[in-house]
Amino acid sequence: MIWLNGTMMEEGEAQIAITDRGFLLGDGLFETMRLEAGTLRRWDRHLARLKDAVLTLGIPLDTTLDIPAIAAELARRNGLDSALVRLTVTRGEGGRGIDVSASVPTLLITAAALPAPLAPPRLITINGPRRAPLTLAARYKMLGYGDNILARRMARERGGDMAVMLSPDGRIACADSANLFWVTGRTVYTPSLDTGALNGTTRAAILDAFAARGLHVEQDHFRQESLASAEAVLVTNAVIGARPAGMLDGRRLKQDHALVRLVCDIERDAR
Amino acid sequence: MIWLNGTMMEEGEAQIAITDRGFLLGDGLFETMRLEAGTLRRWDRHLARLKDAVLTLGIPLDTTLDIPAIAAELARRNGLDSALVRLTVTRGEGGRGIDVSASVPTLLITAAALPAPLAPPRLITINGPRRAPLTLAARYKMLGYGDNILARRMARERGGDMAVMLSPDGRIACADSANLFWVTGRTVYTPSLDTGALNGTTRAAILDAFAARGLHVEQDHFRQESLASAEAVLVTNAVIGARPAGMLDGRRLKQDHALVRLVCDIERDAR
Repeated sequence: MIWLNGTMMEEGEAQIAITDRGFLLGDGLFETMRLEAGTLRRWDRHLARLKDAVLTLGIPLDTTLDIPAIAAELARRNGLDSALVRLTVTRGEGGRGIDVSASVPTLLITAAALPAPLAPPRLITINGPRRAPLTLAARYKMLGYGDNILARRMARERGGDMAVMLSPDGRIACADSANLFWVTGRTVYTPSLDTGALNGTTRAAILDAFAARGLHVEQDHFRQESLASAEAVLVTNAVIGARPAGMLDGRRLKQDHALVRLVCDIERDAR
Repeated sequence: MIWLNGTMMEEGEAQIAITDRGFLLGDGLFETMRLEAGTLRRWDRHLARLKDAVLTLGIPLDTTLDIPAIAAELARRNGLDSALVRLTVTRGEGGRGIDVSASVPTLLITAAALPAPLAPPRLITINGPRRAPLTLAARYKMLGYGDNILARRMARERGGDMAVMLSPDGRIACADSANLFWVTGRTVYTPSLDTGALNGTTRAAILDAFAARGLHVEQDHFRQESLASAEAVLVTNAVIGARPAGMLDGRRLKQDHALVRLVCDIERDAR
């Protein structure tokens, strides 16, 4: 079952008009979250990003809708205790071209089984599509994921599980579907958002929790050598939380570094 | 009437599955063309870009399909002598997440009335979303048009018709839905593609025709001052061809500069 514009229905029955601007122009965004024990993890952070996004895009989404309740009911109807919940918002059916006219937004909510726990991913740094700073894709999960999809395919072709993507000037930005943290010595590093790294909710929760404990994370533009010489690397997103990577460009990474455990512990407990 | 995956049907009947990756992830691209006297203008150039795109994206589109014939028939059924034809290609229904699995592409063809001839557009340089070099959006008309839609809204809010978008380092890239050429003295300028400017078919046709006549167009990274001091500016795309802009950031531009007429004449005659 899925939820589309106010109605629960079978996934196979759910259709979108070909004039939906989400389909024609990627004119919309999404959020992906874990539902655990009936609760959407970090809903406050996802809702804040969603509200900011629809305000910026001018999509008149009713953000007072009780999305956590819909998601919980959807999971229950699908027989799931925990779930991967995805919220997709588009501007809805609208005129042709890039000018915007009044429209009723499309809102789709799905709840699927959570993927099996991720084996420590093998990261591959790709010289492919770059992350783009100063774009909507760096701030929100915009629908246009073509670059990340190509990055993933390039990493897969080289025997990896996840791509490390670069900024236009060749600095480390983020993974194709996760933010990156890494550890060298006693320092934790993560690329600053102006590299084009996605403004991830898990990344933000970790940084807030570090700051609340008086701990420091080095945020900057980092050369590829910084990551290439890291002792350990973590990938973070709302589905997997924080997880140590297994390999980077064929080099085995430490899984049990004290700072890696700290990041994972902090992520687990962070709001 | 529209054409969807092999069938002509009423637009209102045409639906896309919510699992279509074009809808969920902007995993696809489009081409927009003029149909005149039953012929798709510059089809060879659009087809070359389309073939390159589906090869890069790994979308197994059947590119031997006689799209010009379908487009002509579609225009006829819609009672149109000339038409704005849009081709939308997505990876089709596929698995969740950014990994790609075998899928049957979705192909949508629409034919609408051409818009009324564009009054000389008022261009507004916006400090908003940037064009992103080294991304798919700089090479192909990827579905994710969110940045350009926001750029257009920002230009409209300032009384303009079209936005001038910048590269990440603040150089001129292109307009929100067109490439830019400008003229100062005896020189014609256009941003190089590594600014993030779209690799437009009309832009390429003009450059090829200039080169064939031994004429020079200066292609480079240009500061905003270069455009701001232009005597005349042209916008180019496959729907409008080449058209002089009326104003740039509130400053009136020349419409009848000899080089502007030359660009328009060359565009009209170029293959």
